[in-house]
Amino acid sequence: MPPPDQLRRAANGPLLVDLYELTMAQLYFNEGIHEMPAMFEHFFRSYPDYGTHQAGYCIQAGLEGVLDWIEQHRFDQTAIGYLRSLTDRGDGPLFTDPFLEWLEAMSFRDLRLWSIPEGRVVHAGVTLSIITGPLAVAQILETALLNQFSYQTLIATKASLVAESARGRPTLEFGVRRGPQFGAAAGTRAALIGGASSTSYVGAAMLAGVQPTGTHGHSMVQAMMALGRGELGAFQAYARSFPDSCLLLVDTVDTLASGLPNAVRVFTELRDQGHEPLGIRLDSGDLAHLAIRSAQQLNAAGFTDQTIVLSSGLDELAIWQILTQIDQEAAGYGVDADHLIDRLAFGVGTKLLTSDGDPSLDSVYKLVAIERDGSWVPAVKISDSPQKTVTPGHKQVVRLYDQRGLAAADVLGLEGEDIAGADHLMLRHPIRHDFHRTVDRSDIQRVESLLEPAWLDGKRIIGPEPIDQPRGRRAADMARLDPGVRRLMNPHVYHVSLTQALWELKQETVESAGDGWQD
Amino acid sequence: MPPPDQLRRAANGPLLVDLYELTMAQLYFNEGIHEMPAMFEHFFRSYPDYGTHQAGYCIQAGLEGVLDWIEQHRFDQTAIGYLRSLTDRGDGPLFTDPFLEWLEAMSFRDLRLWSIPEGRVVHAGVTLSIITGPLAVAQILETALLNQFSYQTLIATKASLVAESARGRPTLEFGVRRGPQFGAAAGTRAALIGGASSTSYVGAAMLAGVQPTGTHGHSMVQAMMALGRGELGAFQAYARSFPDSCLLLVDTVDTLASGLPNAVRVFTELRDQGHEPLGIRLDSGDLAHLAIRSAQQLNAAGFTDQTIVLSSGLDELAIWQILTQIDQEAAGYGVDADHLIDRLAFGVGTKLLTSDGDPSLDSVYKLVAIERDGSWVPAVKISDSPQKTVTPGHKQVVRLYDQRGLAAADVLGLEGEDIAGADHLMLRHPIRHDFHRTVDRSDIQRVESLLEPAWLDGKRIIGPEPIDQPRGRRAADMARLDPGVRRLMNPHVYHVSLTQALWELKQETVESAGDGWQD
Repeated sequence: MPPPDQLRRAANGPLLVDLYELTMAQLYFNEGIHEMPAMFEHFFRSYPDYGTHQAGYCIQAGLEGVLDWIEQHRFDQTAIGYLRSLTDRGDGPLFTDPFLEWLEAMSFRDLRLWSIPEGRVVHAGVTLSIITGPLAVAQILETALLNQFSYQTLIATKASLVAESARGRPTLEFGVRRGPQFGAAAGTRAALIGGASSTSYVGAAMLAGVQPTGTHGHSMVQAMMALGRGELGAFQAYARSFPDSCLLLVDTVDTLASGLPNAVRVFTELRDQGHEPLGIRLDSGDLAHLAIRSAQQLNAAGFTDQTIVLSSGLDELAIWQILTQIDQEAAGYGVDADHLIDRLAFGVGTKLLTSDGDPSLDSVYKLVAIERDGSWVPAVKISDSPQKTVTPGHKQVVRLYDQRGLAAADVLGLEGEDIAGADHLMLRHPIRHDFHRTVDRSDIQRVESLLEPAWLDGKRIIGPEPIDQPRGRRAADMARLDPGVRRLMNPHVYHVSLTQALWELKQETVESAGDGWQD
Repeated sequence: MPPPDQLRRAANGPLLVDLYELTMAQLYFNEGIHEMPAMFEHFFRSYPDYGTHQAGYCIQAGLEGVLDWIEQHRFDQTAIGYLRSLTDRGDGPLFTDPFLEWLEAMSFRDLRLWSIPEGRVVHAGVTLSIITGPLAVAQILETALLNQFSYQTLIATKASLVAESARGRPTLEFGVRRGPQFGAAAGTRAALIGGASSTSYVGAAMLAGVQPTGTHGHSMVQAMMALGRGELGAFQAYARSFPDSCLLLVDTVDTLASGLPNAVRVFTELRDQGHEPLGIRLDSGDLAHLAIRSAQQLNAAGFTDQTIVLSSGLDELAIWQILTQIDQEAAGYGVDADHLIDRLAFGVGTKLLTSDGDPSLDSVYKLVAIERDGSWVPAVKISDSPQKTVTPGHKQVVRLYDQRGLAAADVLGLEGEDIAGADHLMLRHPIRHDFHRTVDRSDIQRVESLLEPAWLDGKRIIGPEPIDQPRGRRAADMARLDPGVRRLMNPHVYHVSLTQALWELKQETVESAGDGWQD
């Protein structure tokens, strides 16, 4: 047996694979078609639906993980050794020696990958990545590619909803403790791409190159109380240790009767010593009400700009509710609502890193074409549900911007089609035969190609990027997204269409595939 | 900058930590109390609530990850170097050199850990782990410990509900592609502990020592169709490659009109050649109906015992619905329901590995005592919500079994209390003052201590264990769990109580803590 570290590395590397990818690969190998050029696509079918509301868009994340995985992993001796030990139901070896020899020699680096870069706004039913290469190699990549994209795009999307809900105030990711074990680092990175301002998870902050955030928890106050020094003693100790970063958690005993008065006393002492205190954190109770009452006490004591961090079970809906309540109630306590909101920050933990309400994205990886005699033959799966029937063929993806500069539609067309140059564009609904419309080129300000080369000729074309790049893409795309699509509740449905040419190919391929079983 | 691999290892190692653990640790260091012996507890507050139903119990998982983490990690130069670079809001260093020197020298191995072993049935509000050691070291462990236990206990619990719902038929974990990136390996292990029979994730199967499962997906059939060989050609190719493990996915074109007839033809050819086919998989449509109709066709052709694997969006509720429908409808098609159910297996993917319906467990890690002058001083956090007020003090946890041998209650008492020896036991509700009852010792068949030493004297006491051990614990505990608590819908509430002595300590500590802010 190889040592545990090596086994774990293999389990997150070449063996991060569903067994059926490998049995299919062996079948391709046995049939002599394993190196036939094939084309797969990655997309998701529908936006996360949190029950109370559904997202109107997603934020692409996970590409860096895919590229890194391709770069780092191959079927090494650890992986091959394990596969050699597997048996079929007749107790013979499941995998043959010639296949395992091929597997050990092949490289994921021989694949080619185009993808929509991280941070971009992306939509359901749109091709997000195209993968070409030897059939068996591209097949095996499926599990690892989906494992990277699915979770990270989901979390980036949730983070974007949270950030939008927070009206531009900082949102701090606090979720690692209830996050998915070692998946939390990737989830945190995705949250940072999607709109989280920072994170409490030190390692993820290091990897992303952002400053981690955090001050103290209840246990510090409890410890000081058990030692007879009380909450005030705890706050004074914190101020001594962090005079220039003093942010106090005020709800261990009683927020308004104990925490706030003690905090004000310590803040006053700090200011007298020439240090400006940072603020307070509220982690339980009626957060909007307590924020207003806290602002009241802080303002009265001359601490008018100190941050008030809110945390405890927050998500985009809770933040929306809190801000609405502050809008309505603050004035009644002599507190200016806008000024209070301007000093808020939100700690969003568990519900962000687990995408509470909808913990998975229905992303898929589908064979769309096989190359025969130098040209791509479309491949299709016909499903009982029309929306699950794969659109076949070699595609391009463009985004149309209207004369206001807002994204009007994403359009899938055939590779090589001149979409930008056409005077009129017939756009078909991906499924419904009766839904189509014609767009005048003059109504379109710009046609933007969305897929970019990510891995070609054995090497990375994209990244590793500093986190500011995907963050910048998101900011730019959000500004170009219709406010109706951006909104939290009942967003408009963003248009995703096929060109007439691609639509016709889909109809033809489905029809001829229907004959497949009659051969 | 250290190389990326080293940074990643640190991010999943010593830097898998919320920043506030480290700022608190520095405060303890500055106050000279960092090595004062402290006691923390880990527990969860409520069972996963999936919206349509709530679990009546959980399955403990994650301890192996905690012990492994303690064994492997310390604040090495990579971690310390990064922490040294962090600044406070005044642009001075956030951490002082003396603290960082202490941090580099300390070891998590100095902690002591008692825990309820993996695989055991556990309950809300019960102490699942006790951690003692130097205050600052035990504080820092919080994030990593919760990160391991929260997600894995959640998934083991979901897997148990799925397995129960499947009436003893195999449940196969298929979720890695939409699982949480590298957290999927731990999630899969937890699923195997909780009741999943096997997994499609090859690496996780290797780590757990189980045989992975998988055959082929739609893409193989699509590829063959694109090459002009049709679905039948695809099935024949599969049978050629895997004559002794031939299980065919029959829904790529049309399940009943194409997939089944083609499968029957290939199975007949196989049997003629002396190979017994394994079965079919259905991955779309009305699964119960298609299972019945498939059984009909297979039976008619003499394939009466071949497995029928069902997959596609399954969870415990979907499986329950499918089996109910088969019970009701099979006879109408001349199919024996029990015989059909006996040949089923269930592929459960995304919804298992993401705990669909409730993607997080509200597990916490709380300071319960600090040692002063050689004895434990209870520590408490008083909360606005009584159920969040921590029960303080050094505890023992026992499970009472009634005369039928079924678990009747979990009881938290003071360490050293003679629970097993008392003639009568006064049991108090953890929160409600008016709820208490007295249990006669003669009604109790057995008093079992639940916490076991896991890490003492600088080394592991438990494991690494073969997966059969936690699986065996689950099987034994499930057999001793009241059917009312086990059931899927509206389970009985399992009794969790405090002894009179612990209850009195809690009241006293809360009262005296109320004075904390008046110091």
